[in-house]
Amino acid sequence: MTIAELAEFFAAAFPGTKQAADAGIRAIEPGKVRMAHEPDKASLRPGGIVSGPTQMGLADRAAYAVILAHIGPVAMAVTSNLNMSFLRAVEYRTVMADAELIKLGKRLATVDVRLWQEDPSRVLAQATVTYAIPG
Amino acid sequence: MTIAELAEFFAAAFPGTKQAADAGIRAIEPGKVRMAHEPDKASLRPGGIVSGPTQMGLADRAAYAVILAHIGPVAMAVTSNLNMSFLRAVEYRTVMADAELIKLGKRLATVDVRLWQEDPSRVLAQATVTYAIPG
Amino acid sequence: MTIAELAEFFAAAFPGTKQAADAGIRAIEPGKVRMAHEPDKASLRPGGIVSGPTQMGLADRAAYAVILAHIGPVAMAVTSNLNMSFLRAVEYRTVMADAELIKLGKRLATVDVRLWQEDPSRVLAQATVTYAIPG
Amino acid sequence: MTIAELAEFFAAAFPGTKQAADAGIRAIEPGKVRMAHEPDKASLRPGGIVSGPTQMGLADRAAYAVILAHIGPVAMAVTSNLNMSFLRAVEYRTVMADAELIKLGKRLATVDVRLWQEDPSRVLAQATVTYAIPG
Repeated sequence: MTIAELAEFFAAAFPGTKQAADAGIRAIEPGKVRMAHEPDKASLRPGGIVSGPTQMGLADRAAYAVILAHIGPVAMAVTSNLNMSFLRAVEYRTVMADAELIKLGKRLATVDVRLWQEDPSRVLAQATVTYAIPG
Repeated sequence: MTIAELAEFFAAAFPGTKQAADAGIRAIEPGKVRMAHEPDKASLRPGGIVSGPTQMGLADRAAYAVILAHIGPVAMAVTSNLNMSFLRAVEYRTVMADAELIKLGKRLATVDVRLWQEDPSRVLAQATVTYAIPG
Repeated sequence: MTIAELAEFFAAAFPGTKQAADAGIRAIEPGKVRMAHEPDKASLRPGGIVSGPTQMGLADRAAYAVILAHIGPVAMAVTSNLNMSFLRAVEYRTVMADAELIKLGKRLATVDVRLWQEDPSRVLAQATVTYAIPG
Repeated sequence: MTIAELAEFFAAAFPGTKQAADAGIRAIEPGKVRMAHEPDKASLRPGGIVSGPTQMGLADRAAYAVILAHIGPVAMAVTSNLNMSFLRAVEYRTVMADAELIKLGKRLATVDVRLWQEDPSRVLAQATVTYAIPG
């Protein structure tokens, strides 16, 4: 799928979210998707940081995006497991997510996601996300 | 801490959330806290189910609640890891979270959280949440 | 399955292990299995503690046992994910594992396992183990 | 630390293991360590595959190696969490582990480990390993 096709699918799948317009998808390449997320006030926490659930939501969406980009729109793929390590504070500004498909199987897909702001190598949070793909 | 004290602390810590009024805390006992969450429209997904990030946010808050209930208000405790298995669809109505303190150490606290709706033994999602406690 | 049937299956499935004789299965009840493990020298670490991989192996076997006890012998069930939190040192003597089936689905089974020595409520390590069940 | 220094430290730390002689360390570069593991008979499972606990043990050692390579010999660093996704069967021959330091903090270090045999990009298992570093 192209960025435009993926963004259109996301806009339909998540109608209520702020990300609907462009879905924040910045780049798609074989096995990888890069997304950008603009945090909103509900995700602001004391100290000017972005909440954990917001980070988890972003990791989940980025994992979904990289799977869809490789298998086409499958609305019924669902997260079966998400493991996230929160490593550094995420500041209240654009958060980037780099999703990498580790394995795309018939029934399960596993994705590594890393959040960053300044520099992709200074990882703020890492998630391993597993999606179940309907048979 | 009592339910009232914990609810007051949560209201101050999460001012923007719908849960601020009573924090949804239903019961506190040694090592355990039970919370209730009323999902809002932003968490509704196709098929009438509650989104994964909403479930993760609830697990994270319930874990925080059981830790605070045992060590008193420590605003700076932060999630260091959250591992969640999504087992069954969560319907768009009240979701319950049972948090159990597995270990309360000096630096790390580990909590088991289970989400349910109908029956506590029919688990919809299970999370293991680790918080880092400031020294 | 009874303890004897399960032990026989384990003896055949893991022929080379010290646990083959009785498989260490102490109790089976609905949704639960309790196993005992006698660590051997290869698992001894400095300070008189039992190694992490030994703990993971025990958690994995206990999860397998509780699944088999409920669905019968399915040699091809394989671990798809194991998440383990190491909470306290495990001393070099009998280690107990309490496995609880959280969800037994058609394709995936999820199990909570807790290791202990002195007292089941003083948890030394907690694991969430997911098995894929062949269709 | 150099490969020789790290191998010497591992030989002393794990005296009973087959890996003691050279510790299997193949390469050290900034933020990364590559290890090789020769499975022994105890880790062989039906179908000619390598057991899950053996894979977890290898991931754990590779994570330890990359941490030590960057902070020097700290025998008391202990695994606090290990999350592993088993993606494809590991055949009964040399297994490689690529460990990448995601974050090296003062109290916690988080490492991504990927196991492979044929090709580093065909990942057989992925682990995220967190070590607690004594203060």
